[in-house]
Amino acid sequence: MSHSLSPVELIRRKRDGEILSDDTIQGFIQAYTAGEVPDYQMSAFLMAVFLKGMTVEETRALTLAMLHSGAVIDFSDIPGFKVDKHSTGGVGDKTSLVLAPVVAAAGVAVPMISGRGLGHTGGTLDKLESIPGFRTDLTLDDFRRLVSTIGVGLIGQTPEIAPADKKLYALRDVTGTVESLPLITASIMSKKLAEGIDALVLDVKCGNGAFMKTFPNAQALADSLKATGEAMGKRVTALITDMNQPLGWAVGNALEVIEAQQVIRGELLTGRFAELSIDLSAHMILLGGVTDTLEAAREKVLETIRSGAALEKWKEIIAAQGGDPACAENDAKLPTATKEAVVVAASDGFVTHIETEAVGMAGVVLGAGRLTLDSVIDPSVGFKIEVELGAEVKKGDALVRIAFNRDQTLPEVKARLERAFTIGLEKPGE
Amino acid sequence: MSHSLSPVELIRRKRDGEILSDDTIQGFIQAYTAGEVPDYQMSAFLMAVFLKGMTVEETRALTLAMLHSGAVIDFSDIPGFKVDKHSTGGVGDKTSLVLAPVVAAAGVAVPMISGRGLGHTGGTLDKLESIPGFRTDLTLDDFRRLVSTIGVGLIGQTPEIAPADKKLYALRDVTGTVESLPLITASIMSKKLAEGIDALVLDVKCGNGAFMKTFPNAQALADSLKATGEAMGKRVTALITDMNQPLGWAVGNALEVIEAQQVIRGELLTGRFAELSIDLSAHMILLGGVTDTLEAAREKVLETIRSGAALEKWKEIIAAQGGDPACAENDAKLPTATKEAVVVAASDGFVTHIETEAVGMAGVVLGAGRLTLDSVIDPSVGFKIEVELGAEVKKGDALVRIAFNRDQTLPEVKARLERAFTIGLEKPGE
Repeated sequence: MSHSLSPVELIRRKRDGEILSDDTIQGFIQAYTAGEVPDYQMSAFLMAVFLKGMTVEETRALTLAMLHSGAVIDFSDIPGFKVDKHSTGGVGDKTSLVLAPVVAAAGVAVPMISGRGLGHTGGTLDKLESIPGFRTDLTLDDFRRLVSTIGVGLIGQTPEIAPADKKLYALRDVTGTVESLPLITASIMSKKLAEGIDALVLDVKCGNGAFMKTFPNAQALADSLKATGEAMGKRVTALITDMNQPLGWAVGNALEVIEAQQVIRGELLTGRFAELSIDLSAHMILLGGVTDTLEAAREKVLETIRSGAALEKWKEIIAAQGGDPACAENDAKLPTATKEAVVVAASDGFVTHIETEAVGMAGVVLGAGRLTLDSVIDPSVGFKIEVELGAEVKKGDALVRIAFNRDQTLPEVKARLERAFTIGLEKPGE
Repeated sequence: MSHSLSPVELIRRKRDGEILSDDTIQGFIQAYTAGEVPDYQMSAFLMAVFLKGMTVEETRALTLAMLHSGAVIDFSDIPGFKVDKHSTGGVGDKTSLVLAPVVAAAGVAVPMISGRGLGHTGGTLDKLESIPGFRTDLTLDDFRRLVSTIGVGLIGQTPEIAPADKKLYALRDVTGTVESLPLITASIMSKKLAEGIDALVLDVKCGNGAFMKTFPNAQALADSLKATGEAMGKRVTALITDMNQPLGWAVGNALEVIEAQQVIRGELLTGRFAELSIDLSAHMILLGGVTDTLEAAREKVLETIRSGAALEKWKEIIAAQGGDPACAENDAKLPTATKEAVVVAASDGFVTHIETEAVGMAGVVLGAGRLTLDSVIDPSVGFKIEVELGAEVKKGDALVRIAFNRDQTLPEVKARLERAFTIGLEKPGE
């Protein structure tokens, strides 16, 4: 009988901390997506969920309801496991650009639906589109065809995918109900599971440049995502990785493609970015069943890179999605900023703190990122980070090089970056 | 600066349990009333208030903002204190009909804006309108004139009074945010303070026929109302009175007028209803400064009744508001139902429980009350309650007499009343 609860009765129950049945949640989300439940009832419900929480079972039901509000791709005709990765977002996080060709080259299909950058965090679609001609606005049919033929497709969210999430996210944004574990979980997982995947590697970012600033919060989100994915019959691996500094040397769309290509081509196999890319790729390959151990999967990753198979796959992806595959081997074919400025250390010492979110926001001011989804970005501009956290510097050493085109915003960008880097006298504890 | 908080930032703060400034609350309510804040943001805010509460100071600011969303009547040209009573509602609660003439006859002005019955609770306006010709849909100008000339006016809420409350109440009703102390307090007090009163007697009902079922809940509401009224410079007395059985013998509009007139005429001065009416009148007269002690105020009440001054005032009120003053002395001039049925005790024993809300809902089925504000009621129908809680009865004794006109609903009304009265073997503890 519970599926026939009126919206107000359902809101009252959640408000009072009761657990809602699968049918109740399903019916409510369905009615909301159909426009039968008004926003003002949904926002009261969202606030009640924010403050009273949801069990794993409720979160699973919510995810399922949001998932089935739209199209769910069926890749069962493609043999083997289909595996994707989801990152909760950060600054300089371009691992998807490495994973896609590497994992596909290793024989695991990668159906990847990505987002755009917003605020301080970048987005895979913007990075891909800095490759001349590369199109991400493909239909689900195109996407299916790409995954079937070359084993990988990189597209943006389409209106068919989880429309309930689109509507709910817009409402959460204006009603103070964004930072809720069950709501975040359902939002992420409903979209990811619509891709028709069998397994998912989660990269939950933790630190001052991430959505989750503290380890316990990141752990809670990782647990919630993993529990929900597993409750829906998917294999899920969750890593919690550091976002207390930008990931790698590049921040900005074309620059990040260059850094990713350095890994794909095997020129850059050490350092935080390359190592995380290899690690995530290995977890995907392991989940995909190509190897039995993580160690063997890691070997497989390095093999696809060293053999040139990853680079070939990358060229294949670019060509299949309308881009110029010559970019893969020639970084100069990517958009390049006309000018460079440098932010230097004001004193001798050690890099004791990098305010990572502030670096991302400086990128927004520069034009590399956007404040709202309407903003137009400049793919060529960005930052080359010259120092890692803990590095010893001398006064005048470069901390960041700014690749830019327009002089007007440079003073503010420089000032923001200067404030973002702290040089202290003592080397931070290791 | 806090008044410039965006709605979403304000929602987030209340969600996180922070205390909002007067300016912030004022600006938010003003923007909502002006249609600048959408319902979906207000409902998220209301749910956050429901679950996180408000301090007395915040509740005062909310009340003030809602009060000043509309007209506030200024009675400062009328000498002496203006005093009203507010009841949180119940079954058979017709004390306002006694207080108005008695207190006005004692020389205290009574500006009284009342409501209609809804659900199991009756409403003063419906009772008054059962008097042939009596009009309650008067303008604020008419209201002012009545209070100035005869010392009392009995009207319904007008669109000028607290429009923010009207809008908020409708939203709370459909978003599961009704039962919140600060929201209830602001709703009640904003409307009452718009009457231009100096003092208020609160009759907070407690029991199975009241909004507050338990004493701690009723006490909390009484405290909240009193604290808010006093924070706004008003003299407030709060009584908590029993609603575990209908108040008095009459339930139904014309029947309740008859019972009230029995007290006004001095024919009924004992029993729960008459005693509460005298008590509330005395508190209003004391707050109005006519006497120095409650005992003297009580004497004054009895004097206005015994002298016929209360009855004269009642006739004056009826005439001034378009009704037939002959009704005051002749109950037969009020609408009368054509038929009577009796609900009897099924066994010997004691009345151990009366499910008061169920009695009220039986009245709705009968046509004496309404489920929605659109329903049309029959002023002549109702119940004559023959037994009080604890009374000893023999099998076949009348429990309730039903005054009715239409046969169709009688079986359901009878069945509901039979279920509402429990006859047990042991006399309930006193």
